[in-house]
Amino acid sequence: MTRADFLADFRELSALGALPSGGLHRLAGGAADGEARRWLISWFREHGLDPRVDRVGNVFGLREFDPALPYLLLGSHLDSQPSGGRFDGQYGVLAAAHAAASVVVPTRPRVNLAVVSWTNEEGARFAPSVMGSSVFGGDLPAEAALAATDDLGITLAQALADIGMPAGLAPPIFHLPPAGYLEVHVEQGRYLEDHGLNIAAVDRCWGAAKLSVEVRGEQAHTGPTVMADRRDALVAAARLVTGLAELPERFPPGLIHTSVGWLQVLPNSPNVVPALVRLRAEIRCEDPALLAEATRVFEHELCAAESVCEVVITQRSLRPAAVVDAEGARRVLEAAESLGLTAVLRPTIAGHDAVVLSRHMPTSLFFIPSAGGITHNEREFTADRDLLNGVDLLRELVQRTL
Amino acid sequence: MTRADFLADFRELSALGALPSGGLHRLAGGAADGEARRWLISWFREHGLDPRVDRVGNVFGLREFDPALPYLLLGSHLDSQPSGGRFDGQYGVLAAAHAAASVVVPTRPRVNLAVVSWTNEEGARFAPSVMGSSVFGGDLPAEAALAATDDLGITLAQALADIGMPAGLAPPIFHLPPAGYLEVHVEQGRYLEDHGLNIAAVDRCWGAAKLSVEVRGEQAHTGPTVMADRRDALVAAARLVTGLAELPERFPPGLIHTSVGWLQVLPNSPNVVPALVRLRAEIRCEDPALLAEATRVFEHELCAAESVCEVVITQRSLRPAAVVDAEGARRVLEAAESLGLTAVLRPTIAGHDAVVLSRHMPTSLFFIPSAGGITHNEREFTADRDLLNGVDLLRELVQRTL
Repeated sequence: MTRADFLADFRELSALGALPSGGLHRLAGGAADGEARRWLISWFREHGLDPRVDRVGNVFGLREFDPALPYLLLGSHLDSQPSGGRFDGQYGVLAAAHAAASVVVPTRPRVNLAVVSWTNEEGARFAPSVMGSSVFGGDLPAEAALAATDDLGITLAQALADIGMPAGLAPPIFHLPPAGYLEVHVEQGRYLEDHGLNIAAVDRCWGAAKLSVEVRGEQAHTGPTVMADRRDALVAAARLVTGLAELPERFPPGLIHTSVGWLQVLPNSPNVVPALVRLRAEIRCEDPALLAEATRVFEHELCAAESVCEVVITQRSLRPAAVVDAEGARRVLEAAESLGLTAVLRPTIAGHDAVVLSRHMPTSLFFIPSAGGITHNEREFTADRDLLNGVDLLRELVQRTL
Repeated sequence: MTRADFLADFRELSALGALPSGGLHRLAGGAADGEARRWLISWFREHGLDPRVDRVGNVFGLREFDPALPYLLLGSHLDSQPSGGRFDGQYGVLAAAHAAASVVVPTRPRVNLAVVSWTNEEGARFAPSVMGSSVFGGDLPAEAALAATDDLGITLAQALADIGMPAGLAPPIFHLPPAGYLEVHVEQGRYLEDHGLNIAAVDRCWGAAKLSVEVRGEQAHTGPTVMADRRDALVAAARLVTGLAELPERFPPGLIHTSVGWLQVLPNSPNVVPALVRLRAEIRCEDPALLAEATRVFEHELCAAESVCEVVITQRSLRPAAVVDAEGARRVLEAAESLGLTAVLRPTIAGHDAVVLSRHMPTSLFFIPSAGGITHNEREFTADRDLLNGVDLLRELVQRTL
């Protein structure tokens, strides 16, 4: 397999769920996700990998040398945001597939290889994100993942069935604990580009507090209802959105990121004072004490200050700040140096399947540059040279373990 | 037909699209609207009225005495808000049906009678509101109404076809200008209840400016994207929502009502900085100069102040403050007095089909009490005695014209 083969495969895969802009619409369990999964399974078959699907729809391509050996896993995810970029996730899956298929197998391998695409990394259609890897790692029950519903009330189990992916009752695939996990991903920031570097070896991850909030008001007519009588859930929610956006300013610059990416208004009729707003708030920070303090301010100052409507935190989750795997990052730096690639240690702010799995097995996660750091955006772009560097480095890491 | 018949019919009609709470979910052109329309058409047939549907789905029940006479129209609307009350609209249609069917016909009538249910008064599913009456009055082209789309892109024409209502190509029903229009509606305010009165004769209507706004930002990852680099459309929209809610405070108390009842976030994914927010803003006021000033503040101060995102007013409509029909209101006061009902002149803040039609024909619009003024809410309630007072007064008004 040549470098041209990789680029041709990447173009082919990028056409599944393609947006006219060059981005992807490939929500977990949607039609385009089904097409991409089938494409990957065909690719596995054509290249001598044995395709398997586990009970939450994680897709594996096995290259088994000896059934008594543990598996080294490598991969990423095929799903995208509703209008996402074409590099986020699927690049890592295809890089893993090419690395696993093209590595030179020694006489006595120490591991088998399993390329993997994790289900619903994005968390765009089903919550939580990094779902498939969380089930695989044992942090989330499979039943909870399969029962997760999208905005239309469709479960993940149903969505997987709808795209013809056998799941739910699939037997276990691995009978030994995995030997480790490798993942390459585009950076989603512009540190590498700004500093003219090839590779970031990830050794730590920011923490993230995610809160589902309900703002409960009272439905009324937008015309005759006097302003003082209104309990407008959207006005109260808007105060929370602006308050959360200004929250980072209370802390030293750059340490806290906040957002409300998802918000739903009910009944959402032009002539009706909104009765209910649901929103999902995120607070991210590397320092656990600052993250706790920022979360406290949001809950106990901003939410508690609302006097007209009722504000209820219906769900909260904390993904703590974490060391990803210092040893795994060191291996990336060494392998990069051996290939003549410039590399540096960096944290990740976004969550990744590798962050989840690093709690359970030796893990290496590394980034390649992304133009302008533009991500979760159809304009996301990484140059071919950087894509190929990533494949080469991933292959080198596999080679060193094999 | 007895008073008990009216209450029994009202209970029967209220079951179509009923919510467990006692309210209604009966969006224009939806399944429940179809059921209610078929129920009304059956009722017309059983009571000697000739059912007709015009090309935008307005449903008429004709009681023709002499084809050379013009028609007196009386009615309201069967559609509701997504979770609306069961008195708003359908009560007026049924009151009109009972009044028309039970009036004593003189030897030489001066008018024919047509009970009517106007299509899409609420504007909850399709914009604009008061759609059917606006087409009938000549203020809106039928083609524009039929091409209006809901949030899923379904046109009114398609929605009417889906519920089996022949429309689009229906021939004209009336060959003479109507003799007038009568409508009874629940108050949607608590003036009558607070003052212990039976009837409000409506002689004027507040103006309403309705603005469709797009807030355009840039999609990005909610994690790594640094706060200063974000162009978050939801944060900018939240500033507009709170600014609009506080706008009435710049004016003397009670003169201006504002709201954002509808807001849509794109792509609306928890991990994506919102790229686009669409919202519909309303500003209502009786005084045209104050309404213009409040609208100017919203557009040229609040929207213009947004510096991070682009704010575009994509559609604006002004329903000017209006005299409804002073003569028509006077007739209501006289008829009420003859029945021993206490009555008063009042403005309407909400729009009604009668307000639209009063520009084109002699019109009487009157209100009966609504408990606590609660409206566009499933808890909307009017006592039987008040409902029957409304039917009696409507019949008296028909009788005086007939």
